Amino acid sequence: MRGLLVESGHRGAVAVSDADGTLLLALGDIETPVFPRSAVKAMQAIPLVESGAADAFGLDDTELAIACASHSGDKNHLAAVRGLLAKAGLKEAQLACGVHWPMSERASEELTRAGQSPSAIHNNCSGKHAGMLATAIYRGIDPTGYERPEHAVQEEIRRVLSEICGVRLDRHDMGIDGCSVPTFALPLAALAMGFARLGSGKGLTGARKDAAERLVGACIASPALVAGEGRFDTVVMRGLGSKVFSKGGAEGVHCASLPALGLGIAVKIDDGAKRGAEHVLARLLAELVPGADRVLKGRLDGELRNWLGIKVGRLRPSPTLAAAAKSLSPAKG
Amino acid sequence: MRGLLVESGHRGAVAVSDADGTLLLALGDIETPVFPRSAVKAMQAIPLVESGAADAFGLDDTELAIACASHSGDKNHLAAVRGLLAKAGLKEAQLACGVHWPMSERASEELTRAGQSPSAIHNNCSGKHAGMLATAIYRGIDPTGYERPEHAVQEEIRRVLSEICGVRLDRHDMGIDGCSVPTFALPLAALAMGFARLGSGKGLTGARKDAAERLVGACIASPALVAGEGRFDTVVMRGLGSKVFSKGGAEGVHCASLPALGLGIAVKIDDGAKRGAEHVLARLLAELVPGADRVLKGRLDGELRNWLGIKVGRLRPSPTLAAAAKSLSPAKG
Repeated sequence: MRGLLVESGHRGAVAVSDADGTLLLALGDIETPVFPRSAVKAMQAIPLVESGAADAFGLDDTELAIACASHSGDKNHLAAVRGLLAKAGLKEAQLACGVHWPMSERASEELTRAGQSPSAIHNNCSGKHAGMLATAIYRGIDPTGYERPEHAVQEEIRRVLSEICGVRLDRHDMGIDGCSVPTFALPLAALAMGFARLGSGKGLTGARKDAAERLVGACIASPALVAGEGRFDTVVMRGLGSKVFSKGGAEGVHCASLPALGLGIAVKIDDGAKRGAEHVLARLLAELVPGADRVLKGRLDGELRNWLGIKVGRLRPSPTLAAAAKSLSPAKG
Repeated sequence: MRGLLVESGHRGAVAVSDADGTLLLALGDIETPVFPRSAVKAMQAIPLVESGAADAFGLDDTELAIACASHSGDKNHLAAVRGLLAKAGLKEAQLACGVHWPMSERASEELTRAGQSPSAIHNNCSGKHAGMLATAIYRGIDPTGYERPEHAVQEEIRRVLSEICGVRLDRHDMGIDGCSVPTFALPLAALAMGFARLGSGKGLTGARKDAAERLVGACIASPALVAGEGRFDTVVMRGLGSKVFSKGGAEGVHCASLPALGLGIAVKIDDGAKRGAEHVLARLLAELVPGADRVLKGRLDGELRNWLGIKVGRLRPSPTLAAAAKSLSPAKG
């Protein structure tokens, strides 16, 4: 809304599922496969723990959290990536994620002031890449080309994603992500079920169950590392502790696990807009999770202010979304 | 597209009109009013010229172009804004547009290296604001509060927009823009007709016709000032000269005048995405304007590359858009 009129709008779909695949909410098309992008980084990090690599290298929670992160490139993020690389005997030059400026304005300014340019470690995916490299090293596989679809590390990730989400992912479903590793498209219904399993452990067994618990626990214990200051996932996990594991991806995908409720949520905005995905997830969390309305107050209000700080409009949910969110409401029921 | 799948999509509407309001193309909802935002800056600058202020202050083409610009904050842009302010006896502190970092990465880096922060002159709208201030000064009106809806300068702009676009704009249609001046919502059909008139002079008379010709001419003569290096409007006008006047606005609005053809184009993407609006306009220009397919080749190919430069997908037109664009095709017919 700007003034009294609707200026722009976002369409999309959302699934809320339990670990068995029973849907509590289905809005829009939840069956057409969508690329989850960075939303599934914690699933992509499962082999790092499940293989025994994390234990063998003595990785701590910060290093596991950064392996699941889309980080802002601040000092704490770089330190965690460097810690992971060092423990596995790896070098920054082995990261194949490519280079972009840190998402953090402060970090970008500091680099500029120092007359430096960013390198691969500043890429928001560098922790994920460090985890993939460490998995290859631990398994005794040549890490060269670890980012390619045919590499054993990526093949293992494809199997893990398929199994957790209960789908059979193959090459036809594959795209190449911004950071050059494969991303596999899967239905929101499957993604939501996968997140229910990831967060609650239900439907998982043995080393995989332990790995999921450890990775989700590490992210919840270090919310600042999973995203960065002021960003949605950090705000949510810092404010709500073990009640929510939340992870966004590019192009309007956002997922969450609600461990105590045994639920998973998967959102995709058709046009790829982050502002839409975050608003949808905020609406659902506000109904499902006690305290989320307080933690997400600014985002739920949706006030839009201009360069002078004048209130010029607001984000608001569609009537369909608002009604669907209210229908969930165990937080208030 | 990413890999073999559609990752995200944009919906929207587009009108192509002549100066009488006869539509050559109408796709989607072209009747519901949309906020044109910065796309109509050249119309907002009409009073600066029509009033006689531009002549009285001896403004040159660069100063008129910057009054119509959403500039990147590079040195050439700041110089033009400062020139306009100086000729009208104004100070930077009078700009009410608010502050943001320059869109130009280079300019932002230089500010950071110098240990400086941006000021109002770096705001992409500072030239428009300087023009509004100069109009007030020339007319002997107190410029204080020139950005407010009730100020005579904004009232005049509302009348000019209403007359050029053939609609009656009132307070109900008003929103406040990012830079704090009013923005008035109007149908794409009206906006397209307005751009046909603005570029061709048809339907305009006297001082207004002269003002439109001079402002559009100034933008086409100084394409680097209207946007900035690498940006759509600068690329189009630099490559196509007097064949196209092109101006984008926030939230997925993009307009163009094709003076020789006597046509105007107005695009709005529902979700506000610039990538959608620019792609639609590129498709239409490629069919309507000889040489545009060459100038816009990279954008028409729509290749998406990741941080390592690997081709991961592409933008492509919907079948509806592709068919509609082909149906225009005087460039090839």
